[in-house]
Amino acid sequence: MTFPTVVERWDVHEITLAGPADGNPFADVRLSARYQYRNRLVEAEGFYDGDGVYRVRFMPDAAGPWRFTTVSNVTELDGHTGGFEVTPASDGNHGPVRAVGTGFAYADGTPYLPFGTTCYHWTHDMDEDRERRTLRTLAASPFNKLRMCVLPTGQMAPPQVPFAGRDPDGLDKTRFNPAFFRHLEARIRDLRDLGVEADVILFHPYDGGLRGIQDMGRETDHAYLRHVIARLAAYRNVWWSAANEYDFNRAKTVPDWDDILRTIQRLDPYEHLRSIHNGTRMYEVASLYDNNKPWITHQSIQHWDATLTDEWLRVCPKPVVIDEISYEGNIGKRWGNVTGAELVDRFWEGMTRGGFVGHGESLAGFQERAWIGNGGALFGESPARIAFLRKIMEERRDGTLLRYLGRRQPAQVTVDLPPGDGYAAELIDVWNMTVTPVEGVHRERVRVGLPRRPYLALRLTRA
Amino acid sequence: MTFPTVVERWDVHEITLAGPADGNPFADVRLSARYQYRNRLVEAEGFYDGDGVYRVRFMPDAAGPWRFTTVSNVTELDGHTGGFEVTPASDGNHGPVRAVGTGFAYADGTPYLPFGTTCYHWTHDMDEDRERRTLRTLAASPFNKLRMCVLPTGQMAPPQVPFAGRDPDGLDKTRFNPAFFRHLEARIRDLRDLGVEADVILFHPYDGGLRGIQDMGRETDHAYLRHVIARLAAYRNVWWSAANEYDFNRAKTVPDWDDILRTIQRLDPYEHLRSIHNGTRMYEVASLYDNNKPWITHQSIQHWDATLTDEWLRVCPKPVVIDEISYEGNIGKRWGNVTGAELVDRFWEGMTRGGFVGHGESLAGFQERAWIGNGGALFGESPARIAFLRKIMEERRDGTLLRYLGRRQPAQVTVDLPPGDGYAAELIDVWNMTVTPVEGVHRERVRVGLPRRPYLALRLTRA
Repeated sequence: MTFPTVVERWDVHEITLAGPADGNPFADVRLSARYQYRNRLVEAEGFYDGDGVYRVRFMPDAAGPWRFTTVSNVTELDGHTGGFEVTPASDGNHGPVRAVGTGFAYADGTPYLPFGTTCYHWTHDMDEDRERRTLRTLAASPFNKLRMCVLPTGQMAPPQVPFAGRDPDGLDKTRFNPAFFRHLEARIRDLRDLGVEADVILFHPYDGGLRGIQDMGRETDHAYLRHVIARLAAYRNVWWSAANEYDFNRAKTVPDWDDILRTIQRLDPYEHLRSIHNGTRMYEVASLYDNNKPWITHQSIQHWDATLTDEWLRVCPKPVVIDEISYEGNIGKRWGNVTGAELVDRFWEGMTRGGFVGHGESLAGFQERAWIGNGGALFGESPARIAFLRKIMEERRDGTLLRYLGRRQPAQVTVDLPPGDGYAAELIDVWNMTVTPVEGVHRERVRVGLPRRPYLALRLTRA
Repeated sequence: MTFPTVVERWDVHEITLAGPADGNPFADVRLSARYQYRNRLVEAEGFYDGDGVYRVRFMPDAAGPWRFTTVSNVTELDGHTGGFEVTPASDGNHGPVRAVGTGFAYADGTPYLPFGTTCYHWTHDMDEDRERRTLRTLAASPFNKLRMCVLPTGQMAPPQVPFAGRDPDGLDKTRFNPAFFRHLEARIRDLRDLGVEADVILFHPYDGGLRGIQDMGRETDHAYLRHVIARLAAYRNVWWSAANEYDFNRAKTVPDWDDILRTIQRLDPYEHLRSIHNGTRMYEVASLYDNNKPWITHQSIQHWDATLTDEWLRVCPKPVVIDEISYEGNIGKRWGNVTGAELVDRFWEGMTRGGFVGHGESLAGFQERAWIGNGGALFGESPARIAFLRKIMEERRDGTLLRYLGRRQPAQVTVDLPPGDGYAAELIDVWNMTVTPVEGVHRERVRVGLPRRPYLALRLTRA
């Protein structure tokens, strides 16, 4: 057994053990470790990593001395004990993100405003050049959350897949592929080191029947969840998205998704964020999964109309994250060819209503495959404006009012102010990214004349 | 009795008679004339025009010799006969507009594509300078239909109103005001001479209780309709809009509107177009008056979403005219502050789906009151683009395909062509008003690469 004796709060503590390699260790061997901090016990499941190597990963949430004991149905893995010291989190490590009311905060209390983007399959080709390009792009972007899939699609022929055996038609779904997961974990660590949350999509309906991963059966689904969660849950930047476009998977019912989400909840000792993302056709009112269910931490919505945020918040008092609102792009599909201006407009509509909006880019013809699928570089007009919006949102303080005026072009806007205080007003051009002060200190009501163009906002700050 | 002996087909033939001025001639005297052309009889009602003068107006629909006999409950008006010659229509006189399938044509078979605009109260102030300015603006515009109200609103203090007595609180709704109507008729003739259809709105819900005109009772409503129709029906450019935003009138029910529309149908010998315009709040799916009712000739719709045209045509096979789709403007109301680009986009969406869309402008700050209320001049960006669209629509021939690509920006568009013929393709920029030929003659399918911007259309013409 090896393990580090010192680890940072909310970092990964990993125990490595040697054990049996015969039979099917993925299915036959149960391994966990019970971690103790003062009078508190937390149990984390381990996993088989191939070649007779077993690991237990753990994310300690408190600084100080911790002890552990391993538990296994295999004698050589059972009953190992050890201790380690957890040091305070270093700068930039704020712990995992939690839902707080209809917003989010890191575990240390630092507010977190999700500015998500999506690269569903950026890790599957194992093209490290492109992965490094993707990471550089993210580092220079406003985005601090990335939606990404564990499972490949039916169109792909990736060098490694999560399961053992010959891909696609000779897979053994009772065994997992350590090479695939080691690569995936490295990318999740890269994201963590950039301050980007990994919104890990566990299931999706895009297999087209090739590998049968839409309909593996409850037992295999559970074994898959157990393995993925044992591997990834100790990374503080992981979120669980049970599925993308769950309602396009005809093999699974809402009770199946309930079971999957409750299984995630049971297996993850850290209560990482849990959601499920709808796929109901745009331009219809979606019949969404009931996000009021207790195992759902936030509403992960696909819908084109950000103004419905008010309604979603009314129906369910959990954070609204419109992870898919259409992508800036030029492809034939309606979900993938809105202009940069339209996407930015939707960001402002959603975020000034108390929701959060996700980005995606499906501009074809600029690189081998578009950002939304494979990452790489961004070519759109929206990211710079989203960075501007993020700055505006992060500058908000108590008493700051933000009124977005949208696609319309009223000649003036009147805002009633809370009584008592004086307010300074600024006119924001969300597309041209300018902030222009409006003269004076305003009380009770402010009326501002507007230029004849859309995409303006008013910021009112308590003087 | 006086009357002209020669009149042009579809022009107004007017008989003038002297009769009693005592009592209430509007209510007490019934007058009509029976017109005979070969073996066909048409009866038109007359009206009292004040000062002991009675008139019967008639629009003959066939060239040749006509005869008439007056019919009245007053001896001195009864039994007058005469004859006149109807000459063929002169250039520019195509007769009244009829619904033909889901489109329109003049009575002489010339196609009519409505490009409507709205100046609800442009005649009420009797400001002849502004009325002349409005007419000059219309003459230079693409608009060939104007929505306008007979009745004033509760906010107005016009110099004349349709009823006799002291306005607003001493009105006698059993008597009419000839000065008001002579002025109104002169403006309808002005529109006719410009080739503009007058979409005459008979009732509206904007009185605010000031004159009680939303709830006059069935008998007074009928007397009002009888008088207005006797005065205006002989003008070939008149359409009847039973009401604007009928569903905002809480005093009238759908059976009341049925009765009003059937009364219009009964009193109008020429079957001018008849519609009723909904006001249900935008951004909700409107529960529209059932336009399938036989007295409705076309669907006069208020809705912001022109893409619903397909659905409206499916539900009711009568022309779709979205008379109100939001106005280019800068006022505070959502219906009155869309950008020129958004209005033009909606025109293209509706018209390439087989509907017709109406314009309005509510740009405040450029003249005393906005175009939508009082006419005057136009200051928006949309009229020039609507003129361009009108040209494109009028250039269409059998075998021309028009595909609008909307607010999206796909990098290419593929259109399947009818088999057999070759097609020439042109790329239209609907905002910048350019038409760019695409090389080659295309068969079966054409694929065109597109610039990265919205508001494009493809025109395919059989070569």
